[in-house]
Amino acid sequence: MSVRMAVFGLGSMGHGMARSCLRAGFTVHGFDVVAEHVARFVAEGGKAGDVAEVAPDLDTVVVVVLNAAQVESVLFGADGIVPRLRKGATVMACATVPPEFAKDMECRCNSHGVHYLDAPISGGSVKAAEGKLGIMASGSAAAFTALAPILDATAETVFRLGDVAGAGSAMKAVNQLLAGVHIATMAEAMTFGMTQGIKPDVFVDVIAKCACNSWMLENRAPHIVAGDYTPHSQVNIWPKDLGIVLETARTAGFHAPITETALEQYKRAVAMGLGHEDDAAIAKVYAAEAGLVLPEEKQ
Amino acid sequence: MSVRMAVFGLGSMGHGMARSCLRAGFTVHGFDVVAEHVARFVAEGGKAGDVAEVAPDLDTVVVVVLNAAQVESVLFGADGIVPRLRKGATVMACATVPPEFAKDMECRCNSHGVHYLDAPISGGSVKAAEGKLGIMASGSAAAFTALAPILDATAETVFRLGDVAGAGSAMKAVNQLLAGVHIATMAEAMTFGMTQGIKPDVFVDVIAKCACNSWMLENRAPHIVAGDYTPHSQVNIWPKDLGIVLETARTAGFHAPITETALEQYKRAVAMGLGHEDDAAIAKVYAAEAGLVLPEEKQ
Repeated sequence: MSVRMAVFGLGSMGHGMARSCLRAGFTVHGFDVVAEHVARFVAEGGKAGDVAEVAPDLDTVVVVVLNAAQVESVLFGADGIVPRLRKGATVMACATVPPEFAKDMECRCNSHGVHYLDAPISGGSVKAAEGKLGIMASGSAAAFTALAPILDATAETVFRLGDVAGAGSAMKAVNQLLAGVHIATMAEAMTFGMTQGIKPDVFVDVIAKCACNSWMLENRAPHIVAGDYTPHSQVNIWPKDLGIVLETARTAGFHAPITETALEQYKRAVAMGLGHEDDAAIAKVYAAEAGLVLPEEKQ
Repeated sequence: MSVRMAVFGLGSMGHGMARSCLRAGFTVHGFDVVAEHVARFVAEGGKAGDVAEVAPDLDTVVVVVLNAAQVESVLFGADGIVPRLRKGATVMACATVPPEFAKDMECRCNSHGVHYLDAPISGGSVKAAEGKLGIMASGSAAAFTALAPILDATAETVFRLGDVAGAGSAMKAVNQLLAGVHIATMAEAMTFGMTQGIKPDVFVDVIAKCACNSWMLENRAPHIVAGDYTPHSQVNIWPKDLGIVLETARTAGFHAPITETALEQYKRAVAMGLGHEDDAAIAKVYAAEAGLVLPEEKQ
């Protein structure tokens, strides 16, 4: 099947998705504000190019940028691509954004005759590279049908959550609420254990076998034991994503006190200058406050 | 191997452990303040009896009561059993208690020539009945050796956490911090999702396959979907156990804000009269506040 597509955002997630699409034999144009990201992708078989030139020939645009403002800029900004797409083309939007924003983007795309899939992704950079993401998707049957080859190439599991945009982003918000709280709680529990003489490696050995385990604990706690804060997922993601959760909750008249408390801890981590470290570095907030020494850090 | 033992506390956990010991062929005397619990156990092959009469012949006393005050009463109260045990007998203490309390009990038992194992349990009533608990144990080599048959009969996994009491209870406190927060966070996420149109059964279907899953979420969220609040683990456990965590943290100069916030939610549940329901009923706190209707309750 011949697919002509563009990927906007060639960071850790977008790059993996773009490469998965190359492997599937699609023609993939890559766009990123970082020139090195584009050059790397071209060296791997991708295409660069000019939005205005490329747009009319595209079947699909996949947007894997950081936030709602960037999505809006890519789609409808000064050089926005949507007005340049042919009717019947499809946009797949993968950033974590408020559900209301996703509904708005769908509406504006549809008014240009362009299909829209609200398609936040989950799974991390390794699964992105393997084409094994989880995708929490909602949108019209036409959008799902048009994007079937892309979803096949990039996802292990596609959760089909409804026929209008917003439902995918809502599920992603629920996912981020849980994931963000679980990481912070892991750090709280590990450092609390340290005050009671439980070493971080013993914590990992015991807890991962118990009913108090979480996916995030099992994934992130070993980073602290290894002193390895290579940012597979940055601290900076959480003030943004838990902010979306709480803003969405507030609009719905819903109070989420545990999420609020976790967000405060991530904000403390950012204030300590840890924003670009792996999110397991939230343990440093607790360690600093309690005067604990975490396992020695890899340089 | 012939073991003569007593189990104090024949509730959901103690009853399962006592039956597992019967299956192993031990002579088991059961004690409980609830006469029906003792009668049920006698009908199953256990023995009742008088503490003063039974004590001198016992090898082992297993204490599976609710809290530290009950442990102290069983061991050293007016009819306390420890002063009546032969030298070289062993106490295995399974309640969730502060680590400092466990150290104190070990010291007082030792002064009577009695071994002590700090042995909090994890896994719930089903695993207790199957003899497949997780036991977070610390104590002297003599205590571990003497209790080997009991541990074999009741546990799937014994975590050997150190050679003095306190380490087992510290790990249990870490376990309860995580478990208590994970249950409350599950409720927060599920009800938040409901405000965005995500039905509880869809929440369970999607989230259990994602990186935001936790053991507790997977175990407890289906109770809410089924409207089944049969108390496998009561709301009332959490104000007690998270209270132990926070008291232990305070003594160590450690601040645990997420745990504090979760504790407040459990206290709200108790204030709503939900203390004796399954702990998944904490979702009712969120639902009441946000005006959401949870799945219909089984009667």
